[in-house]
Amino acid sequence: MNEVESVARRARAASVDLALATRATKDAALHAMADALEAATGSIREANAADVDAARAAGTPEAIIDRLRLDEDRVRGMADGLRDVAGLADPVGEVVRGSTLANGLELRQVRVPFGVVGIIYEARPNVTADAAGICLKSGNAVLLRGSSSALRSNTEIVRVLREAAEASGLPADVVQLVPGEGHDPAKALMRARGLVDVLIPRGGAGLIRSVVEESTVPVIETGVGNCHVYVDRDADLDQALAIVLNAKTHRPSVCNAAESLLVHADVADEFLPRVVTALQDAGVTVHGDDRFGALDGVVPATDEDWDREYLALDIAAAVVPDLDAALAHIRTHSSGHSEAIVTRSQQAARRFTAAVDAAAVLVNASTRFTDGGEFGFGAEIGISTQKLHARGPMGLPEMTSTKYVVTGEGHVR
Amino acid sequence: MNEVESVARRARAASVDLALATRATKDAALHAMADALEAATGSIREANAADVDAARAAGTPEAIIDRLRLDEDRVRGMADGLRDVAGLADPVGEVVRGSTLANGLELRQVRVPFGVVGIIYEARPNVTADAAGICLKSGNAVLLRGSSSALRSNTEIVRVLREAAEASGLPADVVQLVPGEGHDPAKALMRARGLVDVLIPRGGAGLIRSVVEESTVPVIETGVGNCHVYVDRDADLDQALAIVLNAKTHRPSVCNAAESLLVHADVADEFLPRVVTALQDAGVTVHGDDRFGALDGVVPATDEDWDREYLALDIAAAVVPDLDAALAHIRTHSSGHSEAIVTRSQQAARRFTAAVDAAAVLVNASTRFTDGGEFGFGAEIGISTQKLHARGPMGLPEMTSTKYVVTGEGHVR
Repeated sequence: MNEVESVARRARAASVDLALATRATKDAALHAMADALEAATGSIREANAADVDAARAAGTPEAIIDRLRLDEDRVRGMADGLRDVAGLADPVGEVVRGSTLANGLELRQVRVPFGVVGIIYEARPNVTADAAGICLKSGNAVLLRGSSSALRSNTEIVRVLREAAEASGLPADVVQLVPGEGHDPAKALMRARGLVDVLIPRGGAGLIRSVVEESTVPVIETGVGNCHVYVDRDADLDQALAIVLNAKTHRPSVCNAAESLLVHADVADEFLPRVVTALQDAGVTVHGDDRFGALDGVVPATDEDWDREYLALDIAAAVVPDLDAALAHIRTHSSGHSEAIVTRSQQAARRFTAAVDAAAVLVNASTRFTDGGEFGFGAEIGISTQKLHARGPMGLPEMTSTKYVVTGEGHVR
Repeated sequence: MNEVESVARRARAASVDLALATRATKDAALHAMADALEAATGSIREANAADVDAARAAGTPEAIIDRLRLDEDRVRGMADGLRDVAGLADPVGEVVRGSTLANGLELRQVRVPFGVVGIIYEARPNVTADAAGICLKSGNAVLLRGSSSALRSNTEIVRVLREAAEASGLPADVVQLVPGEGHDPAKALMRARGLVDVLIPRGGAGLIRSVVEESTVPVIETGVGNCHVYVDRDADLDQALAIVLNAKTHRPSVCNAAESLLVHADVADEFLPRVVTALQDAGVTVHGDDRFGALDGVVPATDEDWDREYLALDIAAAVVPDLDAALAHIRTHSSGHSEAIVTRSQQAARRFTAAVDAAAVLVNASTRFTDGGEFGFGAEIGISTQKLHARGPMGLPEMTSTKYVVTGEGHVR
């Protein structure tokens, strides 16, 4: 039995108790974990400083070091996140559907925890507390596999969380770090079918692809977003301008930022100069087709630009002859995350929302709204871009399975 | 591009149209397919006779030949099945949840088809029509990979279904057989991630395991059932006897048949002789632990018996000291399909339904009730024993994904 199997078996044992824990017990544990994190700010920052020093010595780019760094505010943010999760409704036990069958059998479909959830993630150590809180509230034991660059921070955070969970009467093993160096532990986690119920990779496209390829444990794919904004012939162009700017520049590094702009030919003469100037004023490089390319400062788009998730102040931009051409472009290049149309036409909005195959389709709204917080879910483990189980922002209910409870009085067939 | 990729691409193209088809169009196609199957009874039986002859020449066991055989009744059964599906509500377009957010954005989570569904199945050619009907109604193009022993039957059935679909205004490629010989085509289907959205294996444990191991396409695991009946201390023993007999003998070859019997020690003296006699009278071989073994004709159970899915007139049987021991036994040996308790105790029923981790937990009812038809779903593509996406009998809604439609009037963050 390898080390990963051993932690997975401990997680499975702990999950049996956790699945039966009441909301009151779970919420008390979440509050205890939050308080403990704040109380341990000193030791967490110390461990984190060691990670940051090592990363800097290894020549890690400053943007990644910034994600790695924990200050007092970020530790308090983790604690507040756990308290927020405590305030949310418990998904476990929710009756999803129920009926009495013709023969008198009572049928109930009830939400239950998955059991053991594995999370594989990169840099940010605050994911450690966020994921642990969401998993605990949804009744799942969690196996956390963060990046080696955050190992000291994650180890200290998990130590604090485990102590607090145990002090609240839950098994400490509801939260565990997956031990070991290199890629082998993550691979062992991906092959732990039967011990781990679901694996959620959070991070870059490369990480997600490798988990999807190698895992025999069911995977929920998250987050790659080549999001388009399509400005229709019938768009309110002021709205369109505001939405394009917001979708591209509000937070360029996240998956729901826009990466591609499509404009209907009929409004191109009027809209292109306005949008290009506004984007360029905001520091955005426009990678344009021939029509966009006629404007100053626009860089010619290559074939690859239509598929890129820049996560930066860049946008691919093209003029399309009509709505169907926009739909065809999106069908070819979409990553199935969020796609927006700006239009005053009911017919165009209806056609776009019906025909676009994505987790979220937005009408006259920025792609930035595809977010568990914005949707009112209160907590989010990630944004699923796959079609099985959960699609779009995943809150607590998406972290559960269901079971049927069938009650009779000696019923036989 | 291999042949499988080529049919998958055609399926994907067809799925775009099918996703937008109205219920009226889909139901008309289903009726046309049903009528066409009946009209083609002659050619279907001819193709089937060739399959049956070849199977017999190859020394195939009679039980499998029986599953392979299509007579007039079975062809009519396929046609009626398609008409039944036409009568069911269309899951596509159902609003699963909806709200207006604080900022005025309208949020709707709407059921949409997966897109392309692959089904890999064994012997029975009637699965070809059943699966095609359920997929078509749920808006999914289907790629069917049946067993080579049914190839002539399946080819003829699919030819008939495609012609009828096309005559109804749908693309013929909404229903396709995956061509090619040997295992390579099924493997290519399992690797067609991005072209195929979901793969559903239907068949024996070996088939399902190989799909789960090798597929990069998301899989819905179906059907292996090591189902237990636990007779509690507080059971009505007449009910218990009827339920055990029904669960074991009503149809031993299916996944929701009971394979293991657990009896509380307090009722063993009274119940064991009755249940063993009744089972033996019904032709069942009891593989018992020491307590059961003391009775005439009971075969000693080996370690393997507790994990076996006999699919035959055999049952593993043990006496347990208490409910917790029964729960522990089930936790160790359950395949997560259906687990039943017989008890008059509210407390025992509550504890059993909470603690048992399975697709269906039954109280005072036979495991045979875990079935889409019994649950009132009208049609069933299989019984999922995994926790992701769908668990238990899968009807039309389980054959869909969802998307969020977000409508604003120029909303930005």
